[in-house]
Amino acid sequence: PTAASRKKDHIEMAFASQVVKQELDSRFYYEPLLSAHPEKDSWPAFSFLNKTMKVPLWVSSMTGGTAMANTINHNLARACGEFGMGMGLGSCRSLLYSDENLADFAVRKWIGEDHPLFANLGVAQLEQLLDKNELYRVNDLIDKVEADGLIVHVNPFQEWLQPEGDRFRQPPLDTIRALIDQLPDLSIIVKEVGQGMGRESLRQLFQLPLTAIDFAANGGTNFAKLELLRSDARRKETYAPLALVGHSAEDMVELTNELVAEMGAFLQTRQVIISGGVKDFLDGYYLINKIDLSAVYGQASGFLRHARG
Amino acid sequence: PTAASRKKDHIEMAFASQVVKQELDSRFYYEPLLSAHPEKDSWPAFSFLNKTMKVPLWVSSMTGGTAMANTINHNLARACGEFGMGMGLGSCRSLLYSDENLADFAVRKWIGEDHPLFANLGVAQLEQLLDKNELYRVNDLIDKVEADGLIVHVNPFQEWLQPEGDRFRQPPLDTIRALIDQLPDLSIIVKEVGQGMGRESLRQLFQLPLTAIDFAANGGTNFAKLELLRSDARRKETYAPLALVGHSAEDMVELTNELVAEMGAFLQTRQVIISGGVKDFLDGYYLINKIDLSAVYGQASGFLRHARG
Amino acid sequence: PTAASRKKDHIEMAFASQVVKQELDSRFYYEPLLSAHPEKDSWPAFSFLNKTMKVPLWVSSMTGGTAMANTINHNLARACGEFGMGMGLGSCRSLLYSDENLADFAVRKWIGEDHPLFANLGVAQLEQLLDKNELYRVNDLIDKVEADGLIVHVNPFQEWLQPEGDRFRQPPLDTIRALIDQLPDLSIIVKEVGQGMGRESLRQLFQLPLTAIDFAANGGTNFAKLELLRSDARRKETYAPLALVGHSAEDMVELTNELVAEMGAFLQTRQVIISGGVKDFLDGYYLINKIDLSAVYGQASGFLRHARG
Amino acid sequence: PTAASRKKDHIEMAFASQVVKQELDSRFYYEPLLSAHPEKDSWPAFSFLNKTMKVPLWVSSMTGGTAMANTINHNLARACGEFGMGMGLGSCRSLLYSDENLADFAVRKWIGEDHPLFANLGVAQLEQLLDKNELYRVNDLIDKVEADGLIVHVNPFQEWLQPEGDRFRQPPLDTIRALIDQLPDLSIIVKEVGQGMGRESLRQLFQLPLTAIDFAANGGTNFAKLELLRSDARRKETYAPLALVGHSAEDMVELTNELVAEMGAFLQTRQVIISGGVKDFLDGYYLINKIDLSAVYGQASGFLRHARG
Ligand SMILES: Cc1cc2nc3c(=O)[nH]c(=O)nc-3n(C[C@H](O)[C@H](O)[C@H](O)COP(=O)(O)O)c2cc1C
Ligand SMILES: Cc1cc2nc3c(=O)[nH]c(=O)nc-3n(C[C@H](O)[C@H](O)[C@H](O)COP(=O)(O)O)c2cc1C
Ligand SMILES: Cc1cc2nc3c(=O)[nH]c(=O)nc-3n(C[C@H](O)[C@H](O)[C@H](O)COP(=O)(O)O)c2cc1C
Ligand SMILES: Cc1cc2nc3c(=O)[nH]c(=O)nc-3n(C[C@H](O)[C@H](O)[C@H](O)COP(=O)(O)O)c2cc1C
Repeated sequence: PTAASRKKDHIEMAFASQVVKQELDSRFYYEPLLSAHPEKDSWPAFSFLNKTMKVPLWVSSMTGGTAMANTINHNLARACGEFGMGMGLGSCRSLLYSDENLADFAVRKWIGEDHPLFANLGVAQLEQLLDKNELYRVNDLIDKVEADGLIVHVNPFQEWLQPEGDRFRQPPLDTIRALIDQLPDLSIIVKEVGQGMGRESLRQLFQLPLTAIDFAANGGTNFAKLELLRSDARRKETYAPLALVGHSAEDMVELTNELVAEMGAFLQTRQVIISGGVKDFLDGYYLINKIDLSAVYGQASGFLRHARG
Repeated sequence: PTAASRKKDHIEMAFASQVVKQELDSRFYYEPLLSAHPEKDSWPAFSFLNKTMKVPLWVSSMTGGTAMANTINHNLARACGEFGMGMGLGSCRSLLYSDENLADFAVRKWIGEDHPLFANLGVAQLEQLLDKNELYRVNDLIDKVEADGLIVHVNPFQEWLQPEGDRFRQPPLDTIRALIDQLPDLSIIVKEVGQGMGRESLRQLFQLPLTAIDFAANGGTNFAKLELLRSDARRKETYAPLALVGHSAEDMVELTNELVAEMGAFLQTRQVIISGGVKDFLDGYYLINKIDLSAVYGQASGFLRHARG
Repeated sequence: PTAASRKKDHIEMAFASQVVKQELDSRFYYEPLLSAHPEKDSWPAFSFLNKTMKVPLWVSSMTGGTAMANTINHNLARACGEFGMGMGLGSCRSLLYSDENLADFAVRKWIGEDHPLFANLGVAQLEQLLDKNELYRVNDLIDKVEADGLIVHVNPFQEWLQPEGDRFRQPPLDTIRALIDQLPDLSIIVKEVGQGMGRESLRQLFQLPLTAIDFAANGGTNFAKLELLRSDARRKETYAPLALVGHSAEDMVELTNELVAEMGAFLQTRQVIISGGVKDFLDGYYLINKIDLSAVYGQASGFLRHARG
Repeated sequence: PTAASRKKDHIEMAFASQVVKQELDSRFYYEPLLSAHPEKDSWPAFSFLNKTMKVPLWVSSMTGGTAMANTINHNLARACGEFGMGMGLGSCRSLLYSDENLADFAVRKWIGEDHPLFANLGVAQLEQLLDKNELYRVNDLIDKVEADGLIVHVNPFQEWLQPEGDRFRQPPLDTIRALIDQLPDLSIIVKEVGQGMGRESLRQLFQLPLTAIDFAANGGTNFAKLELLRSDARRKETYAPLALVGHSAEDMVELTNELVAEMGAFLQTRQVIISGGVKDFLDGYYLINKIDLSAVYGQASGFLRHARG
């Protein structure tokens, strides 16, 4: 557009461009005087999860096992490779016993050697493998998908509400401790699936030598709610309030900062993926600046929206 | 559903399963790491109102005397028997002078001997019986319905707004004191009918040797509002604000905790039924954990919804 | 209705009678245990504005001069007589110079000798009468309408926005002081017309030997808004924010209590009519209990609604 | 209208003239007793930006270069002349190199010699002129449009979002400092374009010997939002949150008052144009009374609405 047409646009669109002051975002100081515009590729790469990332952005685990999943995983891995992001695979449970779906998860080639890629299992699977003394299957899985480590998701509400869901027979914390004991070289991340975690769960996890904690906070995709959508009307009505129990990413950042201040040298895990309901880059930027640990921010549904085809 | 179809569902339903973080329930810490899933029937039975209950859930008094009431009362009593809940009968006024409606209230057989069952009368009836020196009718009533004791409901707003309503000629507290004096062995619960009670009413009641106080708080079914719905437009408009006067169950829990702290040994009543506007099991769970006395939570309309047929 | 039909109604209407706990009225403690129901005519008469009232309720000034006004004034006066309320006449300006409309205002017969009745003039009229040395006309007016005194309304916003409005050439306070000086026996009430008054205006008024101050607060009928409704679109848009400037009855009660605490013996006016946006008897009851002076509550539009025919 | 018809109107319109007390404007004390109505032209003229103004009202910069702009600028300048307001021209970039559009900006004749008129350039243009050592063009521009000085607008978000937007290669503050150094006699105002400025930007600007700071706060017309309206759907969605970053005029008044208290003699700029989202004269009146510096209030879109034809 020419300068004249732009100026004409301005007059006509000025009335459509009103902002309501009550809706202003009070999280930031806007300082137009202090900096030049950034130049392209001016952000330095940084080390995270023992690999390298170029932007502080994590693709949260999304499940495999369907035709669509293959496309999605490959698209996401390519984006990670191109922009320097890290990625968690969706649940790799089926790969423990068969290679049928392996192709859906085989994305190392696209994401590249430098960027972090993690496999994913539910804590109930690990409980079973421990019981059966089959933890070697975890090592096999990591090898198959060429992952840098394992994400363990802990989701008691979803399992409870899922008709065919697993039951945890011991506290997930015990399972994770046993896993650390028996596979001391495994790089482990623990996450929820969209409900977040409370103060005490966080405190216990931060005491362990994990590679990272992934919040998977409440406020975005919520799997308790998702299971209820698949359920009958009475269950829906009865259990609906459960979907609102949990913690937002911002609350978890605050809990974490309290724990950092409180725990001192007892705090062993020092990297965090802030995820769950992170709506946009401003949310993410705000939260990684607010947390007192090394952090990137993660999104699942935010990527899914654009990765389907 | 197969695992593959579930995973496909997940992708499609993820966008429908978003939670708005401003709506999160901030009353609870969600701690996914700390416990195993509970096993069936793992909750211990406990003693309440000198009987036994298996779940901390009370069926609040709902009136008898109609065909529907018979069905409702029997359904509710059967549920109490099966799940180990307690129950208050609706107003048994008609049974004072006639056995015509006795069948509607004769539910001991269904609820079982172990679980608490209480009869119900308005304070105005007791005022009259006291005046006429006919308190023996109360004992007869208790015997007829095989109840463990008597609930006295105190509802000045409803009576005032009901065209054919009773007038209290003396303060309800005096009536209740006289009742205690003259029937010292009677197990008594005092309740409102959905308006709640203020600080001073609670304080006076807690000083008496009652078996329990039932809040019947405002925030759910409200009988002042109900009477106005049955009234003409001018009365409706004039008195509508009265329906909003009163106290929510949560406010009454807070008032009670203040009184517990304040009254020390003067506090004689030590059991509470938290009811009135308790919407769901999370509300109930929250409130019985918050109160500093032995408590169960009660619902009337919440059960009525499912007990009609 | 029979008891059985009532109980049936109860079941059916219970679901329509739910109250939302967030809407509960937190201004009152509801104490069902403490009192008997009141008996008819059990409230004692009390002295106010040197007359007698049976209920603490004032009919605020509404203008005369139209056919409808005659009906309205007579209806209101009859209600005052029957229930023991007081009443302010609407602006009696036209009666200063002619008796043409006298019949509209001649309501002493209906209200009775005992109950307070006040005439009404704008402060601009008094400014003019003072200028022309014609204050005797005020005395004549009082005599004509057999009033107990004069209400002076002070409404600079309304006059400003009214095309044919008066302009105050000196501060209203000076006019009122001159009136007091020159007619020391006149019983005077000062009021706004629905905008309320700020702290300093109240402070100045409370220092004068007035019979009462009538708040005429903002939050109900607002004459700035009314004048704008009669105006063209541009004036409407430009001046609309003015209608929201001012003080609610509750704010003015708080300001008054601060002044009572602060002014001590300097506070000369000790009676208040709390009016302007008082919606119902609960509002009124709340405010007269909250204020630290002798007070009744007043309504204009609330009565108009029922007095028209 | 006659007095009688007005009174009839009053009764009929009383119900339409209700104000909701929750919406009352709590920023002001309304004091009806204390003053007479003001007389026409009773406000004294005052000195601002080294010129004279009769009302504390500024016409904010709006762009030229289109047919409509010519009409708009001339209308606005005439209004400034008639009522004694000041005015900022829209961006005069095109006039740096050609006189083609000069007529659109040549409004000194209409605004008059006494009232302030300022030219306008973006900070990127000044960066370029400084680089090329062509600052004489700024002096030429000021002469051409007979301006009293130059407004520099600093708008990094708008430039970033505008496809053909400028990039600032150095911090705007450095450019402004260089401009002050090299043209010490130039009267300079710095403004944003509807995003406002944070604490540190303000602090730096107040340390410079500017003639004034113009807030151009967020809460009204927002050019980040405007550029997004001209953009494709994906950019719109991605960048929409940026429009809400920034500071309202009231926030900036508070920041300024903090800085005034804090900076003491280091504060060199002592005049402010409070603008950006100022909706009406009450907003403006409130803010210029609240700020601890000499100030007028400015509007852009508010005038545009009425200046188009
Ligand atoms: C389609 C879909 C599938 C998911 N599958 C998994 C999974 O297999 N394992 C897991 O740990 N989390 C899974 N998640 C949860 C996400 O990793 C993430 O924690 C959650 O969606 C919250 O992030 P969001 O609000 O950005 O969507 C899945 C999420 C989506 C939307
Ligand atoms: C249909 C119906 C009938 C009721 N009848 C009685 C009664 O006879 N006696 C009584 O004490 N309360 C009666 N109540 C009041 C309830 O016991 C309870 O206090 C009230 O409904 C508030 O609880 P909720 O919000 O869970 O409905 C009745 C309530 C309902 C809905
Ligand atoms: C129809 C009508 C006419 C009124 N006329 C007068 C009047 O002549 N003099 C006066 O002092 N106030 C007058 N008022 C103002 C009322 O006395 C009162 O201050 C105002 O309406 C606020 O009370 P409300 O919110 O209860 O209506 C009038 C009000 C109404 C509704
Ligand atoms: C049509 C239009 C054109 C504008 N052009 C300019 C401009 O050229 N230079 C500038 O500094 N600001 C410009 N602005 C921004 C205004 O000066 C002002 O800062 C902004 O609109 C916020 O004020 P408002 O909320 O009162 O509209 C323009 C605004 C509008 C509405």
